[in-house]
Amino acid sequence: MQLTSENIVTFLLSISLMLLSAKLIGELFNKIGQPAVVGEIIAGIILGPTVFGSLLPHTYNWLFPQNNGVKVALDGIVNLAVIMLLLVSGLEVDLSVVVKEGKTAFLTGVMGIIIPFALGFTAAYFFPHLLGIKDDNLKLAFALFIGIALSISALPVIVKTLMDLGIFKTEIGYIIVAAAMFNDIVGWLIFSIILSMIGANNGHTFNQTLILLIAFTLFVLLILRKIINKIIPWIQKNLNFPGGVLNFILILGFLSAAFTEYIGIHAIFGSFIMGIAIGDSVHIKERTKEIIQQFITNIFAPLFFVSIGLTVNFITNFNFLIVAVILIFAFFGKVIGCGIGARFAGLNKNDSLAVGFGMNSRGAMEIILGILAFQYGLIHANVFVALVIMALVTSVSSAPFMKYFLKVKENLLNILSPNLVLFTNFTDKNEVIKELVNQVSKNLKLNSDQIYREVIERENSIPTGIANYLAIPHARVDISRPAIAIAINKKGIDFEASDGTPSRIIFLLLTPKSKNELQLKLLVEIVNKFKDKQKVEQLLLSSNTTDFISMFKNS
Amino acid sequence: MQLTSENIVTFLLSISLMLLSAKLIGELFNKIGQPAVVGEIIAGIILGPTVFGSLLPHTYNWLFPQNNGVKVALDGIVNLAVIMLLLVSGLEVDLSVVVKEGKTAFLTGVMGIIIPFALGFTAAYFFPHLLGIKDDNLKLAFALFIGIALSISALPVIVKTLMDLGIFKTEIGYIIVAAAMFNDIVGWLIFSIILSMIGANNGHTFNQTLILLIAFTLFVLLILRKIINKIIPWIQKNLNFPGGVLNFILILGFLSAAFTEYIGIHAIFGSFIMGIAIGDSVHIKERTKEIIQQFITNIFAPLFFVSIGLTVNFITNFNFLIVAVILIFAFFGKVIGCGIGARFAGLNKNDSLAVGFGMNSRGAMEIILGILAFQYGLIHANVFVALVIMALVTSVSSAPFMKYFLKVKENLLNILSPNLVLFTNFTDKNEVIKELVNQVSKNLKLNSDQIYREVIERENSIPTGIANYLAIPHARVDISRPAIAIAINKKGIDFEASDGTPSRIIFLLLTPKSKNELQLKLLVEIVNKFKDKQKVEQLLLSSNTTDFISMFKNS
Repeated sequence: MQLTSENIVTFLLSISLMLLSAKLIGELFNKIGQPAVVGEIIAGIILGPTVFGSLLPHTYNWLFPQNNGVKVALDGIVNLAVIMLLLVSGLEVDLSVVVKEGKTAFLTGVMGIIIPFALGFTAAYFFPHLLGIKDDNLKLAFALFIGIALSISALPVIVKTLMDLGIFKTEIGYIIVAAAMFNDIVGWLIFSIILSMIGANNGHTFNQTLILLIAFTLFVLLILRKIINKIIPWIQKNLNFPGGVLNFILILGFLSAAFTEYIGIHAIFGSFIMGIAIGDSVHIKERTKEIIQQFITNIFAPLFFVSIGLTVNFITNFNFLIVAVILIFAFFGKVIGCGIGARFAGLNKNDSLAVGFGMNSRGAMEIILGILAFQYGLIHANVFVALVIMALVTSVSSAPFMKYFLKVKENLLNILSPNLVLFTNFTDKNEVIKELVNQVSKNLKLNSDQIYREVIERENSIPTGIANYLAIPHARVDISRPAIAIAINKKGIDFEASDGTPSRIIFLLLTPKSKNELQLKLLVEIVNKFKDKQKVEQLLLSSNTTDFISMFKNS
Repeated sequence: MQLTSENIVTFLLSISLMLLSAKLIGELFNKIGQPAVVGEIIAGIILGPTVFGSLLPHTYNWLFPQNNGVKVALDGIVNLAVIMLLLVSGLEVDLSVVVKEGKTAFLTGVMGIIIPFALGFTAAYFFPHLLGIKDDNLKLAFALFIGIALSISALPVIVKTLMDLGIFKTEIGYIIVAAAMFNDIVGWLIFSIILSMIGANNGHTFNQTLILLIAFTLFVLLILRKIINKIIPWIQKNLNFPGGVLNFILILGFLSAAFTEYIGIHAIFGSFIMGIAIGDSVHIKERTKEIIQQFITNIFAPLFFVSIGLTVNFITNFNFLIVAVILIFAFFGKVIGCGIGARFAGLNKNDSLAVGFGMNSRGAMEIILGILAFQYGLIHANVFVALVIMALVTSVSSAPFMKYFLKVKENLLNILSPNLVLFTNFTDKNEVIKELVNQVSKNLKLNSDQIYREVIERENSIPTGIANYLAIPHARVDISRPAIAIAINKKGIDFEASDGTPSRIIFLLLTPKSKNELQLKLLVEIVNKFKDKQKVEQLLLSSNTTDFISMFKNS
C-alpha cells in the first residue's frame, strides 16, 4: 500500500486548506478577543461535512476522501500533531509549581470526576433510551461510558486555551493543567475498564494498565528526568546543535507516547509526561524550545484542531433532546464539581469558578472517546454527535467564562496594548517620559500634564533605572485601571541604573491611587519578566511593535 | 480507514527508530568527515529489509508492516518531508546568482543529460536482455527509461550534500543546483513521455505538461514572487508573528507542490520553485527561516533519507552484471557529460570535475523513477535494485570526490576548527592576541613568538578594529595553509574600531607568505560574513563554542 500520485495531490491540497482555514479563522477569533483554538475548531466544522461537505459534496469527497490512503495519511499526521502538541505543552510545565499546587489540583481533579460521573451514570442507567443506548445488554457499560464521557477533560484544548489567554504559566493555569492531567488519567483508566467489559481493549487488564502507568510516570518523572538532565549537555557539546537536541526531544516524546498508547492509555499522556521531564532540565536552550514550539504550535496544532470538525455532519446527526441533556449535565457536573474542589482547597469564589470553566473544555479527548465507543457499537451516531457538540460548546465557552471570572485580576499581559509600545529616538529621560505620558493620556483621555508632573517628581526623588537595560518610571494617579506604556531606545537612555548601563526599555507604569498593593505587584512582575539578561537582549533585537509584543508575551 | 491503537504504537516506534538511527549514523559520518546525508541513507539500509529485516524478520515486519495503515501513514510523512526539504532548500537559493550562473548551469545540465542518456539508450536498445528487459514489446520505452534513469539527478541529496560540505551558497554550489534543476525538469518531462507510451501517466500529454510547467515556473518566479514580497510585511504586521508567516510559507509550498504533482512533474519541483520565490523576499526574517530550517532539516529530512533504504532487500535482488553495467555507465556518462559542459562554460579542470561529481548524485529521484517503472511492469526487480545501488553509490561518492577536487580552495568555513574558538576574559588587546597566537601555534606546532611579533607589528601600524564589534589582527607567516582562531569577549576590547565601539569578536588570521591574494580574500570573506549587525549581536548571544560555530556556519 502506497500513496499514488493522485493521492499526493489530494493530500497536499487538503493539508493546505486545513492550514489556511485554521489560520484565517483562528486569527479572526484572536482579533475579537477569543482564543485562536476556538477559531481553528470552527474552521474544521466549516471545512467538514457540516458546511463545505453539504454545499459541495463532490469537491469535499475528492479533497477529504473517506476510503483511501489520503485518509490514513492525514490520520497519521493528525496523530503526530496532537502528540507533538502535548510534548511542547509538557516542555512548558514547571514541575515544582505543579507539585506546589498538588493539593488543589488533586481536590479539583477528584471532584471534577465524581460529580459529572455521578450525574451521567445515574441518568444513563435509569433512562438509557432517553440517552440513545444502542444495545440493552450493555446497559452497565453504557452508563459507565456516559459517566466518563461527562467527566473527562481535554488537555490539548485546555493547554492551548490557557496559552492563548496568556495564563498558562500562572498559578491558576498550573492548577487547571495538573487537575486535568489527574482527571484524564483516572478517566482513561475507567474507560479501559469499559473497553474490557465490551471486549475491546488491547490485551491489558485494568490492573496491568494501572500498575504500568503509575510505574512509568514515576520512572519518567523521578529517574529518567535526572538522566535526561545529564545527557542533554553531552548532546549539545558533541552533536550538531540544535539538531541533536531537537532529535533527542522528539525521539523521547514519540517513544513515550508509543508506550502509553501500548498500555491502553492514550499516546498523548506519554508525550506530555516526557515533555515535562525534558523541559525540567536547566540545560535546554531557549533557542531549541523556540524552534520546536513555533513549528509545532503554528503548523501541527492547527491541523489537529481542524481535523476535529472533519469527523461528522453536525446537522443530520443532530438530536435536540440528547444534545440538551448531555450539554446541561456536562456544564453543571464539571463546573460545579471542579469549582467545589477548588473552593475546598482554599481558592476564592471567582478563581474557583475560573478553574471550573477552565476544566470544562472537552474537545479532542471527548471525540476520541466518542469515536471508540461508536466504533465498538456502544452508542448511536446521534449520541456521538451530541458528545462532539458538547465538546465544542464546552471548549468554546471556556475562554470567555474564564476571562470573565479572572477579569478582576490585573496582570502585565492583560493591560499591555500594541499602540502603547513605541520605538523612540529621544535620548533625554524627561522627553521620553513626556512621550510615554502623552501616548497613555491620549489613549485613556487623561490629563497629561498632571500625570507627567507626578511621574517626574517620583523619578527625580529616586531614579528608576535598574539592571538589564530597564527603567520603570511610575506613579499612582487618578485612574480606575492600571496602564502601561513602553518606549524602546536601542542606544539607551541614562536613568541612573545601578549597574551603570543606559536603559533601553522604558516602562511607564500608572496605577490607581485606590489600589495600594497593585503598583508593587506590577513592578515585581515587570522586574521578574526581565531578570534574564540574554532574553532582554533578544527582545531588543525586535524591530517593530508586533515583534516586540509577541516576543515579550512568549518570554 | 483509520489508524488503530496498535497501528499508532507501531507508527510511533518506527518513526522513533528512523530518527534515532539517522541521527546516530549521520553524526558518525559527520565525525569522519562525510556528509550526514550519506550516513542517513546507510541508516535506512541497515534498518531496512537488507540487514535488520533479514536478521529479525518478525520484528521488522511488525515495525515496518507492508500492508496496513502504518505503511501509508509513513508514506504520507515521508512525502511531506521531502516536499518540505525542497521548500527549505529553495528558501536558501539566491535567484540573482542562479541567473548569473545561467550559462554554465545550462551547458552543464544539457551535457549532463545528453551523454548519459545516449549511453543508456544505446546499450538498452541493442542489448535489452543484458539489462534485464521485462516485456520485449516495450523495447523503445525500456531503452528510453534506462537512458533517462542514467541522466536524472537527485536535487534533495545534492542540496543536502552541498549544505553538509558548506558550499551550498558558493558559485560552484549554485551552478550545480541550477544545472540539477534544469536536468531534472527535462528528465521528468521525458519520463512523462515514457509513462504515456506505456499508458500510465495521469492524463496529461507531454505538450500539456511542458506548457503548464513553463507557464507555472514563469508565473511563480516573475509575478508571484513580487506579490509574495508585498504580502509578507502585511502578514508580519497584522497576524501573529512568526506563526502567520510560517503558515503562509508552508501553505504556498504545499499548494505549489500539489500543482506540479498534478501536471505530471514530481511534487518536489513545485515546493522548490515556490521556496525560491519566497526566499527572495527581503522581508523574510532570519528568525522565521531558522525555525523552518532547523525543524525540517533535523526532523523531516532524516525521515526521508532513511526511508530510501527501507524500500528493498539489496542482497537477494542483487545481479552483479546489471549493477556493474549501470554503475559504470552512470558514472562515466554523468561525470564526463557534466564535466564537459562545465568546462565548455569556462570552468577550470578541477572545478569542472567537482561539478561533474556533484551532479552525479541520484538518490531519491532515481528511486522514485525506479519504483514507478517497476510498478508499471517496465523493469525487473533486479534492475530496480541496480538503480537503487547506483543511486546510493553515486550519492555516497559525490561528497568525497567533490572535496578532493575542491581541496585547492581555501575558505573560511573549511579552515575554522572548534578548538580554535575561545571565550576570553582578557580585556587588553596584546594579551588576547597572545592567547590566540598560542592556541594556533600549539595546534599547528609553530613558533609562537615569531608569529606574535609579526601580528603585533602589523596591529601597531594599523589597528584592525572595524565596525560591528569585529577586529581582525592578521599577518602573513611561514605556513603552508591559512589558519584562523577566534576569541570572543562579550564586554569588548579596544581595537580602535572606526565606529568607536569595542571589538567583541577577534579573528586572528594567518596566511602563507607564498599566497599573496589569499589574505585579502579571507579578510573580505570575514568582513562580509559580519556585515549584518543584528546577526553579529545574535551570534554574540551564544554561550559556548559549539553554539558559536553552528550559528556562525548558518549565518
